[in-house]
Amino acid sequence: MIVVVKFLPYGYNGKILRVDLSKDKISTEFLDDVLYRRYIGGEGFVAYFLLKELEPGVDPLGPDNKLIYAAGPVTGTFIPGNGRNSVGAKSPLTGAFGEAEVGGYWGAELKHAGFDAIIVEGKAEKPIYVWVHDEQAEIRDAGHLWGKETGEAQKIIREELGDNLIRVTQIGPGGERLVRYACVTNDLKDVAGRTGLGAVMGSKNLKAVAVRGHKKIDVVNPEKLKELSRWLIQNMEKVAGSNHNFGTGANFEVNVVSGNLPTRNFRDGDFANAEALSGVTIRNTVRIGMDGCYACSIRCKKVVKITEPWNVDPMYGGPEYEALASLGPNCGIDDLKAVCKANEICNRYSLDVISTGAVIAFAMECYEKGILTDRDTDNLKLTFGNADAMVKMVEMIGKRQGIGDILAEGVRRAAEKTGKGSEEFALHVKGQELPMHEPRLKRALGIGYAVSPTGADHQHNLHDMGLTGPSIKKFSALGIIEPIPLEDMGPRKVRALIYHVDWCVLNNSLLLCGFLPWDYDQTTEIVRAVTGWNSTSWELMKIGERVTTMARAFNIREGFSKEDDWLPKRFFSPTTSGPLSETSVSPEKLQKARQTYYAMMGWNENGVPQRAKLEELDIGWVAESPLEMVK
Amino acid sequence: MIVVVKFLPYGYNGKILRVDLSKDKISTEFLDDVLYRRYIGGEGFVAYFLLKELEPGVDPLGPDNKLIYAAGPVTGTFIPGNGRNSVGAKSPLTGAFGEAEVGGYWGAELKHAGFDAIIVEGKAEKPIYVWVHDEQAEIRDAGHLWGKETGEAQKIIREELGDNLIRVTQIGPGGERLVRYACVTNDLKDVAGRTGLGAVMGSKNLKAVAVRGHKKIDVVNPEKLKELSRWLIQNMEKVAGSNHNFGTGANFEVNVVSGNLPTRNFRDGDFANAEALSGVTIRNTVRIGMDGCYACSIRCKKVVKITEPWNVDPMYGGPEYEALASLGPNCGIDDLKAVCKANEICNRYSLDVISTGAVIAFAMECYEKGILTDRDTDNLKLTFGNADAMVKMVEMIGKRQGIGDILAEGVRRAAEKTGKGSEEFALHVKGQELPMHEPRLKRALGIGYAVSPTGADHQHNLHDMGLTGPSIKKFSALGIIEPIPLEDMGPRKVRALIYHVDWCVLNNSLLLCGFLPWDYDQTTEIVRAVTGWNSTSWELMKIGERVTTMARAFNIREGFSKEDDWLPKRFFSPTTSGPLSETSVSPEKLQKARQTYYAMMGWNENGVPQRAKLEELDIGWVAESPLEMVK
Repeated sequence: MIVVVKFLPYGYNGKILRVDLSKDKISTEFLDDVLYRRYIGGEGFVAYFLLKELEPGVDPLGPDNKLIYAAGPVTGTFIPGNGRNSVGAKSPLTGAFGEAEVGGYWGAELKHAGFDAIIVEGKAEKPIYVWVHDEQAEIRDAGHLWGKETGEAQKIIREELGDNLIRVTQIGPGGERLVRYACVTNDLKDVAGRTGLGAVMGSKNLKAVAVRGHKKIDVVNPEKLKELSRWLIQNMEKVAGSNHNFGTGANFEVNVVSGNLPTRNFRDGDFANAEALSGVTIRNTVRIGMDGCYACSIRCKKVVKITEPWNVDPMYGGPEYEALASLGPNCGIDDLKAVCKANEICNRYSLDVISTGAVIAFAMECYEKGILTDRDTDNLKLTFGNADAMVKMVEMIGKRQGIGDILAEGVRRAAEKTGKGSEEFALHVKGQELPMHEPRLKRALGIGYAVSPTGADHQHNLHDMGLTGPSIKKFSALGIIEPIPLEDMGPRKVRALIYHVDWCVLNNSLLLCGFLPWDYDQTTEIVRAVTGWNSTSWELMKIGERVTTMARAFNIREGFSKEDDWLPKRFFSPTTSGPLSETSVSPEKLQKARQTYYAMMGWNENGVPQRAKLEELDIGWVAESPLEMVK
Repeated sequence: MIVVVKFLPYGYNGKILRVDLSKDKISTEFLDDVLYRRYIGGEGFVAYFLLKELEPGVDPLGPDNKLIYAAGPVTGTFIPGNGRNSVGAKSPLTGAFGEAEVGGYWGAELKHAGFDAIIVEGKAEKPIYVWVHDEQAEIRDAGHLWGKETGEAQKIIREELGDNLIRVTQIGPGGERLVRYACVTNDLKDVAGRTGLGAVMGSKNLKAVAVRGHKKIDVVNPEKLKELSRWLIQNMEKVAGSNHNFGTGANFEVNVVSGNLPTRNFRDGDFANAEALSGVTIRNTVRIGMDGCYACSIRCKKVVKITEPWNVDPMYGGPEYEALASLGPNCGIDDLKAVCKANEICNRYSLDVISTGAVIAFAMECYEKGILTDRDTDNLKLTFGNADAMVKMVEMIGKRQGIGDILAEGVRRAAEKTGKGSEEFALHVKGQELPMHEPRLKRALGIGYAVSPTGADHQHNLHDMGLTGPSIKKFSALGIIEPIPLEDMGPRKVRALIYHVDWCVLNNSLLLCGFLPWDYDQTTEIVRAVTGWNSTSWELMKIGERVTTMARAFNIREGFSKEDDWLPKRFFSPTTSGPLSETSVSPEKLQKARQTYYAMMGWNENGVPQRAKLEELDIGWVAESPLEMVK
C-alpha cells in the first residue's frame, strides 16, 4: 500500500493516517498520485480500501472491520460545497458496503491538519479518542467521555485540548451501544447517517476523532474557484434560493399532493397537516437562524430553538427533510416541536433519523395490528400520531431501553425477533430502512433503492421528477435528450438512473455537496482548478461508475446476490389513500429493470461485475484479487 | 422517417435531400432535432440511414444499396477543420459497413446549399449527375461526362452550369468501371478513399454531385469559434506546425527507424532511401505550394507539379503519407516522381491510393514468387522497385486493362482468382487492404484493423505511439492515466483503443478533421458554440460509441462474425529485416484482445451487440428492428 509519491498532487496532502487501535499504533502512509486520480477520494477511497484490505466475511462489529474517514480534493478549499467527508466500513446494519457522507467542518479541518483520510482498524481495549493536529496524531483516553451525549463530549474535548476551534467527529450513546443505525456526527449536527457507521466506531471503543490544522490546501487555479464562488453568490436566489432561504423541506406539503410523502410507514397517502412541518413554517416559528458547512455560501441548515413542551438546544441544529418526514408523517405525526425534539435526541445520541423514524413507524404499525402490545412497549401507546410516544421511543432506542433494545437492531432484525407477520411492516432493502421518498411515485428511485450497494439510499439515487418536462435539459448534457415519464421503468429510465448515480458517486468521492448547483461543466472546472488535471466529464463519470462497481464487487464478495436487490412487498400495492392509491410498483417491471441495470452496468445476470468491465474501468485488480469474486 | 422539425437546430439546415435515381425523383425531408442530437451527422447519419433503410443482403453494386453523403453540424461554419463530409454505403469491397470521410470544399458547399445530407437510392438508366443549388436540386444527364477523368468532368460541369465556384464530388473512370476500391473525389484532390464508395456511385450511373449555395450556417456563439480560430493561428507552429509546413509524411524516413513503414507488401523492414519521399524532400523539390480545406488555416495539403519524366498536373494536389508509403516503399519504390504520378492517376481515375498501392504490392510479390508471370502481366516486369511498372499498373487498374481487371477487384478477390497460394500475400481485413501503418509495431492499431467495421482502417483507429511516454497526458483527460507500452495487447490497450475510436467516430460524425489540434474540451466547446446544446464530453464519447455499435450491428446483420475480425497471417511472423525482424503479433494475444474488445463494448463473445448495451446507447430500436440481428 505504501507507495512513494511521484509528486504531490494539488488539492491533496498526499498522505493518510492509519490508526491501529489493537496495536495502539499510528502511522502515516503516502499514496501514489495515480491512486488519487483513479479513486479521487471520499467514497472512492472507501471502496478502494475496503476492497483492498478487508477479508470477506468479517464481523462488521468486530476488530477486523475497518473504518475509513475520507476527504476529497475539494475538501478544505474555499469552493462552496466542499465541506463534506465520507465515512465507510462494512455496515453492521446491512453486512454490505457501508458508506455515508457528512457535512460541516470536520473534513476541511482534517485536510488542514495534513491528511486526506484516516483508516481506523482493530479495537481499543478501552474507550479512546484520536487527536489529529497539524501533521501529527495521538490516541487518547476517552473513559471520561464514554456515555456522554455528543454535546457534552465535544465540550470536554475542546476544553481539555485547549482549543475551541477543534472539530470533532464522534458518536453519542447510541453509537456506543451499537445501535445498528447509529450515525457518525460532525460538529453535533451534521451526520454520516446511513449504514450504521456509528456502531462501527462504538465497536472499536472509538468515541471521537478530534482534528485541528492550519495548513492551506494548494489549488492550481484559485481565480477560477473565486469566479465560481462569486457566480454562486450573485445567482443565489435563482440557483439555490430555496435551500438558501429555507433549507430542505421548504415546501414539505407539496409532497402530499405528489404522493411523495411517506405516511404511516409508507402505508397511507393522506396527511392533513403537512404544512405544519414545512420549511416555511419552521422559519416562521421555531427557527432562530441558518447555519452552513465550511466555506459554503448557501447555508442551508436550519437551527431551531424550542423551550416548551421540550427543550430543543440549538447547538444540535434543526431537522432536515428526511427527519421531518421520517419522524413526522411516516409516524403519522404533524407536531413540529416533537419532530424537532426527536431530531435533537438523534443528534445527541448519534442515531440516524431516517432509520429511527422508520423503525418507530414499523413498531407503530405492529402495535396497531396487535403484534406488539402494551406489555412489549412498557405501556407506551405506540399508535401512529402519538408524538409523545415517538419522542420517548427515540430515547429508548438510544439507551436500548425496553423495546428500544430490539428496535435498535433495525427493522429487519426487529421483525425477525418479533415474528407474527411483522416482516410485512419491516420496510428495508438489504436491512437498511427506506429514506423518505416514494418508490411508487419515483420509479427510478425505487429501482435505485433495490440495487444500491448500501441498501435503500437516497444519496446514490435518482429522484426522477426531473426527467419529465423542461428539467430534462440538465440531463441532456449527458445525452438523455428526451423526457421520460415518471411511471416508466424501462431501459430509458434505467439508463438515466445509472448515469445520474455515476455522477452522484463522483460527487461523493470528490466530496462536492449535491445541494450545490454546479452543473457537469462547473464540476469539471472545479476538479481542474483544484488539481491541475485535464479531466473531462468522461473521466469523472467513469470514476463514478468505477466506484459503484467496486462497491458492488465488495457486496458480491460478501455473498450478496440478486435476491437482495429487491423492494419490500408493500410497494407492489398502492397506498390505502391519496394520490398513489391506484398505482404501485410492478414486480415484473422491477425484475426486468434490475436485469437491465445489471446488463447496462456490464454485470452478468446475477449482478456480478464481469472481468472486461472491471478492466475497462481500470480496476482489473478487482478481478485478479485472490479474494476471487468474479464468477 | 419524415418528422416535423420541432425547432431548427443551429449548425444544421434541418433537412436532407433524397434522390431516387430509379424513379428519377428528388425530395426534401425534414429531420427531427432529436435525431440530429443523437446521431450528430457524418458517420452517425450514415450508420443511422444504412441500418434504418437497407435490407440485409442487398448487392452493394445493385440498385438497392444506398449512398449517403452527410455533413455535420460544424461543416460549412468557419471553424478550422470543418471542411469534411462523410460518404457511406454498403461496401462493394467488403460487403460490410462502408464509410469514409473526405476534405475539401464540397461538404461546406452542400450545407450552404441548404442540405445536411443527401441519400441517393436506386439506379439511373443512363449516366447522370445531380445538381444541388440553393435549396433546389435536379438530376441532369451525364452522358457526355461518362468516361471522362475527374479534372475534365469538373471543368465541363462548371462550364455548363456557368459557375466556376461550383463544388463537385464525383468519380473518374475507376468508379465508373466499378473498381471495388474506387474512391469518391471532392475538388479533384480530396477523397473518401476507403471501402469502394466510388464503385457504388458508378453502379448507380451517378457520375457526380455538383453543389453551390449561398446560405450562411447560423451558429449560436460565433465569438467562441473566432476565439478558437485565433488560438489556432497564434499557436500554429506549436500545435500543428508539421502539418502546416509539410503536410503528412513530413518525416517519412523516421518510419523506417521505428519499423512503421510497410515495405514490399509488409514483408521487409529495410528501406534505404525513404528520405526521398519525405515531406521535407517534397517541399525542396516538386512542391509548388500548399492547399487546404474550406476555412482551414492549417492548409496541410501538398500541391506538386512535375513535368518530366511524367507530367503531374498540380490541379490533382499531391501525395499524402498513405499514398507515399503505399505506392512507394510498400511497392519497394523510392522514386518520388513516380509516386506523385501514380497518386495523380489515382485522383484522375478516382482510385483509393491505399488499396491501389497494396494491390500492386500484392501482384509484385506474386510476380516475384512466379505465381504471376509475364503472360499474366502482358510482359510488365512487376518486380518490387519497378517504378515504371507501378505507374503503368495504376492506369491498367483504372481502365481494368489486362491484369488490372483482376487487381481492380481488390486483393481478396484477386487472390481467389489467382490461386496458387497467392492468398498468403493478399493482405486485407474483411477484404479491405491495410493502410500504411504496421500492426507488428502499433499493436492497438493491429487490434483496431481486426475489429473495425470497415475492415483495415486508419481513420477509426489508435496509433498507439501516443500512449507511451509523456504524450499519455492527452489521454489522461479520458482517465487513461498511465503509459501503456507499445507491445502491450492487454485490456489496458484495448480500453485505450475503444476510448480513442469512440472519439474518432465522434469526429467523423461531427466532421471535425482529425488533423486539427482540438482537444476534448475544445471540441466540446465547438459543439456547444455551433449548436447551442449543453453537450459534455460524456455525451460526445457516447455518440462515438453509439455509432461504432451501429456499424457493428449493420455488419452482424450482413452475416459477419468474429472470424472476420482477424489479421492476415503475415503479421504473426516478423519482417524479414529491420526493426521488426524479431517481433510479431501473437495470434493468441490478438484473439484475447478481440474477445476483450467485444466484452468491453458490451457485445457477446461472438461480437454481437447486446440489447442492454443498445438500450444504454439510446438505440434500443436497433434490437427491436424487424431485421432482428441481436442474438
